[in-house]
Amino acid sequence: MAEEAAVRAQAETVRRLKQDKADPDEIAKEVTKLLEMKAQLGADEGKQKFVLKTPKGTRDFGPREMAIRERAFKAIISCFKRHGAEVIDTPVFELKETLTGKYGEDSKLIYDLKDQGGELLSLRYDLTVPFARYLAMNKITNIKRYHIAKVYRRDNPAMTRGRYREFYQCDFDIAGQFDPMIPDAECLKIVHEILSDLQLGDFVIKVNDRRILDGMFAVCGVPDNKFRTICSSVDKLDKMPWEEVRSEMVGEKGLSPEAADRIGEYVQLHGGLDLIERLLQDPKLSQNKLAKEGLGDMKLLFEYLTLFGITGKISFDLSLARGLDYYTGVIFEAVLLQQENEHVEEPVSVGSVAGGGRYDGLVGMFDPKGRKVPCVGVSIGIERIFSILEQRLEASEEKVRTTDTQVLVASAQKKLLEERLKLISELWDAGIKAEMLYKKNPKLLNQLQYCEDTGIPLVAIVGEQELKDGVVKLRIVATREEVNVRRESLVEEIRIRTSQC
Amino acid sequence: MAEEAAVRAQAETVRRLKQDKADPDEIAKEVTKLLEMKAQLGADEGKQKFVLKTPKGTRDFGPREMAIRERAFKAIISCFKRHGAEVIDTPVFELKETLTGKYGEDSKLIYDLKDQGGELLSLRYDLTVPFARYLAMNKITNIKRYHIAKVYRRDNPAMTRGRYREFYQCDFDIAGQFDPMIPDAECLKIVHEILSDLQLGDFVIKVNDRRILDGMFAVCGVPDNKFRTICSSVDKLDKMPWEEVRSEMVGEKGLSPEAADRIGEYVQLHGGLDLIERLLQDPKLSQNKLAKEGLGDMKLLFEYLTLFGITGKISFDLSLARGLDYYTGVIFEAVLLQQENEHVEEPVSVGSVAGGGRYDGLVGMFDPKGRKVPCVGVSIGIERIFSILEQRLEASEEKVRTTDTQVLVASAQKKLLEERLKLISELWDAGIKAEMLYKKNPKLLNQLQYCEDTGIPLVAIVGEQELKDGVVKLRIVATREEVNVRRESLVEEIRIRTSQC
Repeated sequence: MAEEAAVRAQAETVRRLKQDKADPDEIAKEVTKLLEMKAQLGADEGKQKFVLKTPKGTRDFGPREMAIRERAFKAIISCFKRHGAEVIDTPVFELKETLTGKYGEDSKLIYDLKDQGGELLSLRYDLTVPFARYLAMNKITNIKRYHIAKVYRRDNPAMTRGRYREFYQCDFDIAGQFDPMIPDAECLKIVHEILSDLQLGDFVIKVNDRRILDGMFAVCGVPDNKFRTICSSVDKLDKMPWEEVRSEMVGEKGLSPEAADRIGEYVQLHGGLDLIERLLQDPKLSQNKLAKEGLGDMKLLFEYLTLFGITGKISFDLSLARGLDYYTGVIFEAVLLQQENEHVEEPVSVGSVAGGGRYDGLVGMFDPKGRKVPCVGVSIGIERIFSILEQRLEASEEKVRTTDTQVLVASAQKKLLEERLKLISELWDAGIKAEMLYKKNPKLLNQLQYCEDTGIPLVAIVGEQELKDGVVKLRIVATREEVNVRRESLVEEIRIRTSQC
Repeated sequence: MAEEAAVRAQAETVRRLKQDKADPDEIAKEVTKLLEMKAQLGADEGKQKFVLKTPKGTRDFGPREMAIRERAFKAIISCFKRHGAEVIDTPVFELKETLTGKYGEDSKLIYDLKDQGGELLSLRYDLTVPFARYLAMNKITNIKRYHIAKVYRRDNPAMTRGRYREFYQCDFDIAGQFDPMIPDAECLKIVHEILSDLQLGDFVIKVNDRRILDGMFAVCGVPDNKFRTICSSVDKLDKMPWEEVRSEMVGEKGLSPEAADRIGEYVQLHGGLDLIERLLQDPKLSQNKLAKEGLGDMKLLFEYLTLFGITGKISFDLSLARGLDYYTGVIFEAVLLQQENEHVEEPVSVGSVAGGGRYDGLVGMFDPKGRKVPCVGVSIGIERIFSILEQRLEASEEKVRTTDTQVLVASAQKKLLEERLKLISELWDAGIKAEMLYKKNPKLLNQLQYCEDTGIPLVAIVGEQELKDGVVKLRIVATREEVNVRRESLVEEIRIRTSQC
């Protein structure tokens, strides 16, 4: 690696000399040196110690992990489709400027591509900004879509807790000008359905509104230009105690202690319709236009959630802030609660698995004329869910099949490769999922063992006698039962026995 | 943009001064200038002309395109599963050194990520090299897997012909030490099944073997060190006439005219078992060990393909070379043939839609001890297939549904939003795919129109009378028939009418 660094340094020297328009002879000399170093490096290449790994913060998914992942995706996609969503896809990278100014402080976590001539590109950081770009670019003002794809963040990975640099997001969004809170309520219903369906244990969906937060800051005496930074302090309340957050506000961010204490009173509030009613009567908050608007909509939202029968898991929580810059209205976040047990008084949150909110201004940032398209959406954090499902499966020792193969085509004697090939070809052409061992003369025991190992339920055995009789011996792996089936009925028999109709 | 370029130039100046350890005062001065320029740029940001596009060579997939794409994926995945494949996934980027030295001349098309501190990364160029890295890293010596994912090439895009910089590959590979040509034959069977299933019109799968090519070069008098470069000339025969390829060999690559002419005789040969037999008798070729081995295996392959009943679409073609460095044995490529018509004498190829081959050395390149894992696989080029399906659908004017919604929950009078929300929630919870308009008081006509536009087959209408009677009016959009259904039977009725059981 030291040689490689030396070559890079030499290349940089050459580049600089050229840029500085140095003496051509000097440039030529350094170029020669660079080429020699490169040739030397190339010659050494075979001997170099090669690091065999995936990039930091990423991982492979083997067949077993994929089987688990696909179960979770299936539940999520089927929920999105149940709600009538279309699906779209966008490129993994965007023009760098498309992502600029959308993520606040998080922008430093964006992966950039190398400038190899041409456009400056970055890997997408979420699916929301590309969605907004897609809407503006295609002048779409009305769509309900889902998008499941990988996003990229140069964050500190914590892989055991499901935090990666490359991870999937499963997004559902509703764009369009509609009557208040109807799409917003549907997003919460979707989170509720998915988390219930995946049986991840108890959960709560915290809800707040950017307008209520901003109104609260105003009535607490936070200066206008400190709203954002104080909001990002509040956002830390799920990881830090109030005392620390308060001292950040006062110490680092120069907020008056009185203002901080007033915020402290509000952010400990959480509840349901009763709390909304109380705050609507709050002498200070009710005087603030933004807060009043937000509280009115929050009330409407809770009415709709009552009709959906899901308020039991919803908590209006004044401490919920969410980091991203682009939210303008309702915001929400679903957290799983630790399984209750006798030693713990109150269930503790083990982390966010879904989040979202309303972002009415984002599409307008891309439109040349600033035309707005109101949007609300939810993003399911599949990696954390996946970690939980994986751990649970480990614990249960359930055997996960990684293929759907219905039948193994096997032979009882030698020299039957051609017969196996003929039979398996017939089965494939009839749509049967079939495998065979890639050996000329496999032992029957090995073939049966393969079925045990991989969970294949049936074996179709060809032997000399069976060929003469025009039958195939069908063995049921689980029971070891064997029946002779006429060749022309084999496909039908396999279908029935694997209950595929 | 000029301002941005100026800021970048200024940032470079600062970087250089720091690197050169220049006078701190001078550095400070230039940093101040940089910050001012940046602030100015930020202030201008709103006014900047923003380019609203996807990066060069990429595109979005809207709901309609996704519907078409998912049809093709479904056919491909179901074929891979029919053959008992497991599925894996790998990160979209790899360590740069993982990709180094695997692609020959094509390496220049690899996308690199910017060095933002940490590892040097590149976007994957295909799925084969990541697969080999995965096998070596996990010491897997035996697997049959598929992998469907996007790969990246900084090539000249030709989007109308389905050539993109970001595109999907659908790979199926068999890794392991097996008896000769059984897995190879299965790969060809898979290509045959998929292309038949997708009904893309007539096609031919060209087959050759790297050993036959190398043997041919040897007996034609090509010097050992020119095998690769002459091979890449041969690879151009599908786009250039022989005369041009010949003059490249002789002119640019310094091959003797006699050797070139001998090659010219071989590469025009194509056929089946008969040609293999003839070449096995060829006085020169049969004396070459490599060629003889390759021809022997090719004969075996054709025997297996005969058992599969697919030799009609297979052509042993001595002009097939394929560019990638890592192939070691059988290679193949499927091309679609232009639909025959009276004016064209011979069907013309319109491009490759699948390709693959055997690469027995690639995994060993990653293994610290060089342990080999023989592999053979096929990659389906979905973009070109997708282009064809899309064009065909345009022509047919078939209406493509982009959602699966079974029923729209509608109301005939005003003030029934709450009733609609209650009903749709019941339907969702019962697993019915249902939508409603996000309006408090939508007009019935608009609701019916929405069904017409999006292909929703049923409308569940709530009205005051229906509520009193405990029924829902179910309207069948296609026939305009309306029936009253008791509320408790509604789910069942919708299931039956959308034949979902």
